[in-house]
Amino acid sequence: MSKWLLPEHLADILPAEARRIEELRRDLLDLYRTHGFELVAPPLVEYLDSLLSGTGSDLNLRTCKLVDQLSGRTLGVRADITPQVSRIDAHLLNRPGVTRLCYCGTVLHARPADLLSDRELLQIGAEVFGHDGVEADIQIIQLALESVQRAGVRNARIDLNHPGVFRALVNADPALAEVDAELSDMLASKDVSGISRLCATLNDVRPDTVQALVAMPRLYGGVAMLDQALQVLPRLPAVLKAVNDLKALVAALPDYEFSIDLADAGAGYAYHSGVVFSIYAQGWHDALVRGGRYDGVGKVFGRSRPATGFSLDLRKLSAGLGAPPLTRAIQAPWGTQSALVQAIRSLRDAGEIVVQVLPGQPHSLDEFQVDRELVQQDGQWVIRAIPGAH
Amino acid sequence: MSKWLLPEHLADILPAEARRIEELRRDLLDLYRTHGFELVAPPLVEYLDSLLSGTGSDLNLRTCKLVDQLSGRTLGVRADITPQVSRIDAHLLNRPGVTRLCYCGTVLHARPADLLSDRELLQIGAEVFGHDGVEADIQIIQLALESVQRAGVRNARIDLNHPGVFRALVNADPALAEVDAELSDMLASKDVSGISRLCATLNDVRPDTVQALVAMPRLYGGVAMLDQALQVLPRLPAVLKAVNDLKALVAALPDYEFSIDLADAGAGYAYHSGVVFSIYAQGWHDALVRGGRYDGVGKVFGRSRPATGFSLDLRKLSAGLGAPPLTRAIQAPWGTQSALVQAIRSLRDAGEIVVQVLPGQPHSLDEFQVDRELVQQDGQWVIRAIPGAH
Repeated sequence: MSKWLLPEHLADILPAEARRIEELRRDLLDLYRTHGFELVAPPLVEYLDSLLSGTGSDLNLRTCKLVDQLSGRTLGVRADITPQVSRIDAHLLNRPGVTRLCYCGTVLHARPADLLSDRELLQIGAEVFGHDGVEADIQIIQLALESVQRAGVRNARIDLNHPGVFRALVNADPALAEVDAELSDMLASKDVSGISRLCATLNDVRPDTVQALVAMPRLYGGVAMLDQALQVLPRLPAVLKAVNDLKALVAALPDYEFSIDLADAGAGYAYHSGVVFSIYAQGWHDALVRGGRYDGVGKVFGRSRPATGFSLDLRKLSAGLGAPPLTRAIQAPWGTQSALVQAIRSLRDAGEIVVQVLPGQPHSLDEFQVDRELVQQDGQWVIRAIPGAH
Repeated sequence: MSKWLLPEHLADILPAEARRIEELRRDLLDLYRTHGFELVAPPLVEYLDSLLSGTGSDLNLRTCKLVDQLSGRTLGVRADITPQVSRIDAHLLNRPGVTRLCYCGTVLHARPADLLSDRELLQIGAEVFGHDGVEADIQIIQLALESVQRAGVRNARIDLNHPGVFRALVNADPALAEVDAELSDMLASKDVSGISRLCATLNDVRPDTVQALVAMPRLYGGVAMLDQALQVLPRLPAVLKAVNDLKALVAALPDYEFSIDLADAGAGYAYHSGVVFSIYAQGWHDALVRGGRYDGVGKVFGRSRPATGFSLDLRKLSAGLGAPPLTRAIQAPWGTQSALVQAIRSLRDAGEIVVQVLPGQPHSLDEFQVDRELVQQDGQWVIRAIPGAH
C-alpha cells in the first residue's frame, strides 16, 4: 500500500476549499459574537470517563481511544464538543445566570456516520445555558437558521421533534417502563402494528396511553397538527407543555417552514430533553444542523443546568456549496530594493494578494487567479493587467 | 479523582483568551494570504508510517497512536503538520514550479516538550516548496518576523544555524561517518575537550576537519563572525555556500538583529537541511517560532522537492501576551415584536454585540463588557449608556 494513501473517510482539504471553510468559520463565529456568545476551546482529548459523562453509548462507540503516557489512563479523542462545553459551563465558569457559549474545533469519529460521511469534522456550535424557557430555544433555532442563510444555503427546511411527549407517557404509566427503549424505536420507525402488538402484551397498561402511542406515528405535519395532537393525547401537564412550547416556537419564527413529528424523539447522542430540531437543505444528503434542549448533561459535573444549542460540520456545509470561488492576485518580480519592497507592502496592507516570484522558477496556484502584475515604468512601480488572464 | 479534571498539560481555553487566539489566527492567515500562500488542511490522523515518513525518531516518540477501526492499522494523531503539508505538495498537488502553502490546525504531543508546555498546540505555519535558493529562505524568515510583529511582540531576536557546515565536514571526511551523531551532540553542547578527545581516537581523520570541529563551538555571534569562520573552516563548496547564504540572508533583512551559531545544527525534528532559525522574545520561555530548510522530506512521497518554512503555536503566542482585551456590548430586552427585532438586527449588522436578555434570568459575561442598553423612548428603540458600567 502506498505510504501516502489516507485512511478511509479522511481527507486533505486543498486550497480553494480550505479557504472557503475558513471564511465560513469566520462568518459564523462573528455572527455568534454579535449575539453575545462567548468563545471557548475545550481540549481535543480528555479522560474517557469525563468525555462521555452524561452521554449515551452511541457517543462511546464513536470515540477513538488512546493511552495517556503521563497517567496510564484511557483518553478519548472527542467525537462531539457539546458535552465538553456543558462541562465548562457547569464546572469551570460556574456562573449563576444565563451563559451563552460558542466553539469551533475538530472532532474525530471512530467510524463514519454513514457511507458518505467523513470521520473528521470541523464542528461549530452555540449553546445557551441556565434558561429553561422556550425563549432560549427560539434564540437558538433562529441563530441556527441564520447560520445556514449566512453560508448561502437557500430553502432550508426545519424538522421539529419533542421527546417530552413520549417521556410524559412513560412517566405517567408504570407499565411502559420495561419496554421504554423498544417503544421509542417503534415510534421512530412509525411501526403502528408493532406498537399495538407490544401494548397488548403489557399488564395494567392505561387505555389512554395505548391510544396515544398508536396515534403518535400519525402526528406529523405542519403546526396545525398540534391542535389535532391535543385531541388524542392525554392531557398530562408535560404533554401540554411540550405541545405549547412547539406552538410558541413556530409562532415566533413566522418566516420559516416547520415539519413537526411527535413520534420521532430525535436522533443524536440521546441526551436531548426538550425541543429537538434538524435543518435540511437540497444538496446535503443528511441534516445540515442538529440541535435541541439537553437539560441534564451538567448534572454529572456537579450542577444540573438547563441547556439548549446546536452544531454543524463546516466541512460538510462547504462541500455542498459547489465550487469555491478564486481570488484575484498580483504578481511581483523578485528583489529586495526598497522601492519594490515598499510598493509590495502597500498593496498587501490594502488587502491585495501579491505573489512575489522567486528567481528562476514559475509558480502555480489553485486558490488565486493572477490577473495583474507589478512592473517598473519610468522609475515607478505600477500595476498592469496581464494580457489573456481573466 | 473528579470526573471533570483534565489530563496534565491539557487545558480548556476560556472566553477572552479563546477570542484572542481566534483573532491571532485570522491576522496571521490573512498575512500569509496577502503573500500568496494557499491554505490547506491535512487530516488530524493518518496511517502512522505515512505521518512519520522522512522524519526522525523524535517525532515518533511525540506521536499518540490509536487503532483504525476500519483497517485495523495503526494511526497517529499528528504531532507536527509540516510533514503533512510536504506530502500534499509532493504527492497531491504535484506542481512543477514554486508552491506556497499555509495551514492552521490542532496538533497533539504524547508528552509535553517541557514542564511549562502544553500537549495540545494550535500550530500555524507557512511553507515554500520548489525553490532551493536563499531567496525563499529570506521570504520565509521575513514572514515569520512579520507574524510575531503583527501579534504585538516587541524586540524579537533571531537565532540562525546551518547544519550544512557540519554535514560538509562529515561528507568530506569518511573517518567521521561512524561518530556523526556523537559529534553533532558535542557541537550542540559546545564540548571542545570532548571533540578533541574523540577526534584523537579516529584513524585517518583529516587534520583540517579536526581543526574545524574544534573551532566550531566558538563560531557564534553576529554577522561579523562569518568572516572569521571562513578563515578556520576548510574551503569546501558546501561550507562556502552555507556561509554565503547566511550572509545574503542577514544583508536582506537589515532591520533585525541576528545571532548565528555554526556549531548548533538546530533543534526540531531532525529533518532540516539548510538555514535553520528560531525567534525568541521576552515573555516566552522557549522559542516562539521555529523554521528552516528541509529539502529531503518529499522524497518518500515520490518527489524530492526543496522546501523551507516555519511554524508557531498560537496558544503559546497568546499566553505570553498578557491579559486579553474585553469587547463592549449592548444589552437588549426580551421580545419578538418586529420593531425590537429590527433594531437588534441593525446593530448586529453594524458589528455591535447585542446580548438579548432571556426572561427572568440575569446573565454574566467574561468576554464582553456590557456598557450600553437598548431601551424604548417615545416609541423608538434607542441606545443608552448604563450608569456605572465602564
